[in-house]
Amino acid sequence: MADFELNILGCGSALPTTRHLATSQIVNLRDKLYMVDCGEGAQVQIRRMRLKFSRIGHVFISHLHGDHCFGLPGLISTLGMLGRTGDLVVHGPNGIDRFLRPILDLFCKGLPYEVRFNVIDTERHELVFEDRSLRVYSIPLRHRLPCCGYLFAEKEKEVHIVREMTDFYQVPVRMMQAIKRGEDFVTPEGEVIPNARLTRPADPSRRYAYCSDTAFHPAIVPYIEGVDMLYHEATFAEQDLPRAKETFHSTARQAAEIARMAGVKRLIIGHYSARYEDTEPLLQEAAAVFPETSLAREGMRIGL
Amino acid sequence: MADFELNILGCGSALPTTRHLATSQIVNLRDKLYMVDCGEGAQVQIRRMRLKFSRIGHVFISHLHGDHCFGLPGLISTLGMLGRTGDLVVHGPNGIDRFLRPILDLFCKGLPYEVRFNVIDTERHELVFEDRSLRVYSIPLRHRLPCCGYLFAEKEKEVHIVREMTDFYQVPVRMMQAIKRGEDFVTPEGEVIPNARLTRPADPSRRYAYCSDTAFHPAIVPYIEGVDMLYHEATFAEQDLPRAKETFHSTARQAAEIARMAGVKRLIIGHYSARYEDTEPLLQEAAAVFPETSLAREGMRIGL
Repeated sequence: MADFELNILGCGSALPTTRHLATSQIVNLRDKLYMVDCGEGAQVQIRRMRLKFSRIGHVFISHLHGDHCFGLPGLISTLGMLGRTGDLVVHGPNGIDRFLRPILDLFCKGLPYEVRFNVIDTERHELVFEDRSLRVYSIPLRHRLPCCGYLFAEKEKEVHIVREMTDFYQVPVRMMQAIKRGEDFVTPEGEVIPNARLTRPADPSRRYAYCSDTAFHPAIVPYIEGVDMLYHEATFAEQDLPRAKETFHSTARQAAEIARMAGVKRLIIGHYSARYEDTEPLLQEAAAVFPETSLAREGMRIGL
Repeated sequence: MADFELNILGCGSALPTTRHLATSQIVNLRDKLYMVDCGEGAQVQIRRMRLKFSRIGHVFISHLHGDHCFGLPGLISTLGMLGRTGDLVVHGPNGIDRFLRPILDLFCKGLPYEVRFNVIDTERHELVFEDRSLRVYSIPLRHRLPCCGYLFAEKEKEVHIVREMTDFYQVPVRMMQAIKRGEDFVTPEGEVIPNARLTRPADPSRRYAYCSDTAFHPAIVPYIEGVDMLYHEATFAEQDLPRAKETFHSTARQAAEIARMAGVKRLIIGHYSARYEDTEPLLQEAAAVFPETSLAREGMRIGL
């Protein structure tokens, strides 16, 4: 079982190439799958990476450019053909429903499940989704149209019970929840066993931040400070900075600057412009500023 | 320069597999490209097969199932990014505009070219398009929703002038068009040179018929009689005939029966159900009825 893992389905940009596919990722947290953007071809990549369609419950769309959401109609149809019954929630900017409703009406009559929409205010950093193990927050980005990134933050985990100690002190099962909450244990003889003797600290909660597409935008730094992994778009090399500014994209060096300022543990760059046959120079440019940088590529799985 | 060639971009059916892509083809007639259906992933296949986006002027959609048209939004966007200015005409059943208009409005503001729609009556066999070198006719098919195939018929070609003879008789240039139309030549001395001495017969006009998706439907035979190449769907093997009937698809044997009845020169089968890891048995089944059968596969180019 995957613990907390990022799967790169596609990391190219808008123009099709034979080297990269349009943007799409799947965050896998203990076998629950959260999709992040859904470019054309995502569903074939899901098959190729042997991810389970049935485990996708939520899709988080960053913005309404085709290379980030033209895989949705196919994905939604396929989930129907596979006999899905549980709701699918599509989170995304205003317009996401206007994009998909007509397609659902025309192509998905008798879909055995419901598609629900959660319209995101891309201007705000706020909680957009929460389940038992995860909170997802929006990250306002700066692009040619409303666009946000997403922060996937694992919830605080429970402390570990030290079984040998609770056995030794004969802690009754009905007390275990209280011990997990931090209470001490008082033996029938009145001896106080401090909580620290019965437990080990919880595993740290991990965070993954997804930031694509965006101009260089240091205002996001407070939202992604210290995350375990940051995906930041690096559409251009520094030599094409004017083009990056014009199109509201970032250079590889700028992505690394953001990672450095935010003190993240690790940076993954992607969303490469079709003009670069070789992305190695983008890596070198970023790594010069932030050494813990990797290049995204299709089929990559990265544990947090 | 390709003379008359079929390019298979995808030949799978609705459920995604790692073996096949959704249905999409390009008919190449002397470097003018006519697209036939446009499943998800078509634009990457166009790149992979090194076909030129700029040479696509018309797309012919058979029916409004996602695996035959979910590649259109991406293709239309890409053509815009590549700076296209000439119209793109999308031919397809009623609803094709209702599918694409909202997407054009949301995603393609400022598209530098126009997308026009030609709504096809899928119940009729009629001329739907004509240009200098080609006529395209609809072929009514029998599927779960309105659906038609397309017949690509090269126009009658000109006879060949036998240069040695026209030189010998000193036929003036201004007479050449008349000679091509079949007239005899009368020399200044009054001698009648029969046309047959001055010309060789025109090359035969070739025809390609595309029939997907359809139940076994012998009513199409008169429309495709004697074509040089027939693509006919063969979603199922004969052992799954009940499933074929239920879903209005054909078996490989049925596809071959149609080819045999129509006396076509060559049959290509495709639109394989995701259930068949190996398509070789489909080929054997069809070839037993119609030996000149081939299996479609992605990346295939077949000259007529």
